Amino acid sequence: MAITTNEPKLESMGKAAQKTARILSHLSTQVKNQALVNIAQALESNQADVLAANDKDYRTARADGLNDAMLDRLLLTSERLTAMAKDVRSVAALPDPVGEIMESNNLANGLHMEKRRVPLGVIGSIYESRPNVTIDITALCLKSGNACVLRGGKESLHSNTALVSLIHGAIGDSGLPIDAVQFIDNQDRSLVNSLLQMKEYISLLIPRGGPGLIRFVADNATMPVVTGGIGVCHTYIDKTADSDKAVNIVFNAKVQRPTVCNALDTVLLHSEVAPECLPLMARELSQVGVELHCDNRALSILGPDNGVNAQPSTPDDWGKEFLSLTAAIKIVDSLEEALDHIDTYGSGHSEAIVTEDQESAQRFLNDVDAAAVYVNASTRFTDGSQFGMGAEVGISTQKFHARGPMGLRELTSYKWLITGTGQVRE
Amino acid sequence: MAITTNEPKLESMGKAAQKTARILSHLSTQVKNQALVNIAQALESNQADVLAANDKDYRTARADGLNDAMLDRLLLTSERLTAMAKDVRSVAALPDPVGEIMESNNLANGLHMEKRRVPLGVIGSIYESRPNVTIDITALCLKSGNACVLRGGKESLHSNTALVSLIHGAIGDSGLPIDAVQFIDNQDRSLVNSLLQMKEYISLLIPRGGPGLIRFVADNATMPVVTGGIGVCHTYIDKTADSDKAVNIVFNAKVQRPTVCNALDTVLLHSEVAPECLPLMARELSQVGVELHCDNRALSILGPDNGVNAQPSTPDDWGKEFLSLTAAIKIVDSLEEALDHIDTYGSGHSEAIVTEDQESAQRFLNDVDAAAVYVNASTRFTDGSQFGMGAEVGISTQKFHARGPMGLRELTSYKWLITGTGQVRE
Repeated sequence: MAITTNEPKLESMGKAAQKTARILSHLSTQVKNQALVNIAQALESNQADVLAANDKDYRTARADGLNDAMLDRLLLTSERLTAMAKDVRSVAALPDPVGEIMESNNLANGLHMEKRRVPLGVIGSIYESRPNVTIDITALCLKSGNACVLRGGKESLHSNTALVSLIHGAIGDSGLPIDAVQFIDNQDRSLVNSLLQMKEYISLLIPRGGPGLIRFVADNATMPVVTGGIGVCHTYIDKTADSDKAVNIVFNAKVQRPTVCNALDTVLLHSEVAPECLPLMARELSQVGVELHCDNRALSILGPDNGVNAQPSTPDDWGKEFLSLTAAIKIVDSLEEALDHIDTYGSGHSEAIVTEDQESAQRFLNDVDAAAVYVNASTRFTDGSQFGMGAEVGISTQKFHARGPMGLRELTSYKWLITGTGQVRE
Repeated sequence: MAITTNEPKLESMGKAAQKTARILSHLSTQVKNQALVNIAQALESNQADVLAANDKDYRTARADGLNDAMLDRLLLTSERLTAMAKDVRSVAALPDPVGEIMESNNLANGLHMEKRRVPLGVIGSIYESRPNVTIDITALCLKSGNACVLRGGKESLHSNTALVSLIHGAIGDSGLPIDAVQFIDNQDRSLVNSLLQMKEYISLLIPRGGPGLIRFVADNATMPVVTGGIGVCHTYIDKTADSDKAVNIVFNAKVQRPTVCNALDTVLLHSEVAPECLPLMARELSQVGVELHCDNRALSILGPDNGVNAQPSTPDDWGKEFLSLTAAIKIVDSLEEALDHIDTYGSGHSEAIVTEDQESAQRFLNDVDAAAVYVNASTRFTDGSQFGMGAEVGISTQKFHARGPMGLRELTSYKWLITGTGQVRE
């Protein structure tokens, strides 16, 4: 069911989703997995249609002057579609969270208690750009027994429409009601406001996109919202760090996919390791076009005529999510100073330390208040697939309900089932 | 720290709580337990002061015409204080949730992942009447490493002030900062609005009180809220029910403490069992003063001159939380009809079936969408203490983050700790 005309239809979508959610909550694992396998197959065998639709979106977006980060997020390729299909198969292969007995207990009075995992109900998502979100959220919602109402951005409308049509065909073939996945293809902005009021029908809303969208949804939604997707990520090079490891990790965190939220933004280097490590690191980064915004101490370590792309940092650089080949560089005199900087400027997403010292590693793991805290690894690993969740509906930077990558379990609630033989309370 | 004059102080309370939360998050289990034991001891040895303060509140409330349910919630007795101390000791005896490794995993690339439980930060609570909430929330917050900001109702101001003074003495003696438990003793209502805006400082807000308060907080709070405490609880007597069990369970659920949220509101009786069961049940309930609001079929089963306190139900009786010695009675013709009624009128709190049929029991457990679903037991068991959580900060009727009684774990979040040897993403 898609809406193309007016607002009351939005409510009927919500009702249909809620009704379908009841059916989904009782489906067998086998039926849900078949639906996912069908979606994966459709993604593999209908690439031409989807790529043609995506090409239409991409050309328009480029003509409209979307920046490189946005264009990269929008782009689908045969390789990316195959990766999406693989992620869907991974979700199918994961254990079904629904019905899982999370705890069980026999009380002294003979009551038997079980805490059983159940779906949340209807998941709403408002997202920009990345059309793979349509597939990821669909796969995770179906497997976790939830219906979903999706509202993608106008820049990816053709791509999303093609993907949803493919999803509907695939789940219909496996006997699922197609109302399980509802897509709002009307781009009227007032519909977003209406969607945010639908707490009666939508159990959880997940915004994915830039800070403006996230903030707007968080401030105006009447239902619970999981916010995230904004990552101001630091990597701290401790005084005992191995320089090669440090350069490798920083290079990967910054360069491997700079347009995503777990990419590195700021490198903090201990002053004792910086003279050896920073020139190597700056050279490697510069060679692939990374622009370095350096504090004065970093600049003086690099020296004049250093052949690297370095310029003085400004106060704005600290706490900035660059989403591009830019990194801020700061020299610190202690682990404590690094922790303070991260505490002040971090967004609670992903933070890393490179160190050979166990005590520093433990201190960093204990003290940093973020969804994912790393020792000697790239922050790029904060991702549902990498974490073994198959895919993710988003990366939460809040502490409530779910933190970090949100996969199947994070789309569930639970209920307490208590069985007795006539027990009453004394 | 207490505020008695103006609003800016509220912000400084929030800041102090947040700062203290950092300290609390790193405290050893031993130190936290000692603080709880000190509170329990203070509750046992300072009963006179607290009871005198409570007496002041109680007299004022009675003079102000508070209803019996509210007066019962407000009343403290030596017995109730001893029970509160016992609950605090139970919380001390529970395992410390903070630092618990919830999952751990070695990835193929050699990364070691751990999901470690951490406190939420600062818990806010706005509550009416029951002064034991002050102790319950304090105990659970301290043990789970959270600071708290409490705003009790004006009717229990003296009681709460006495309790908080006792808490501050007890935790100060164990070396904890007294800012860990902050109490707003200014009754200016505009402070509630200000509190609801303090999302920068308060991680989670728990309103406890009547539907008006809960709705106001849910609609206006800027931070996550756990709503609950409203229970429209049904007990369905299935066609195969054992009548004695049914009467016992219904009697307990209705009579044992009628002013609380897990007390029974509506009895649904299968028409095949009602002729035998209803007269027995009605007689037992009437003997202790329960007023029965019966549908026509129930009335005709009871017959004229039945000697019980029965009157015709009105449409308002379905879905009503009575909080008093009143119960609605309805005859249904099938389990399905009972499920539909519960689906329409239940509040997602606690629902029960009395049956000797395994299939009906399973169907009820699977289909009812509520925090706690019972077979052959009283709904009165939905309670943190009864569930083995020591105490509760509230009973959530939402599905997000926590459902049902909220104890220690429900006041925590987690973070992912990933340790590597230089891994980067391919």
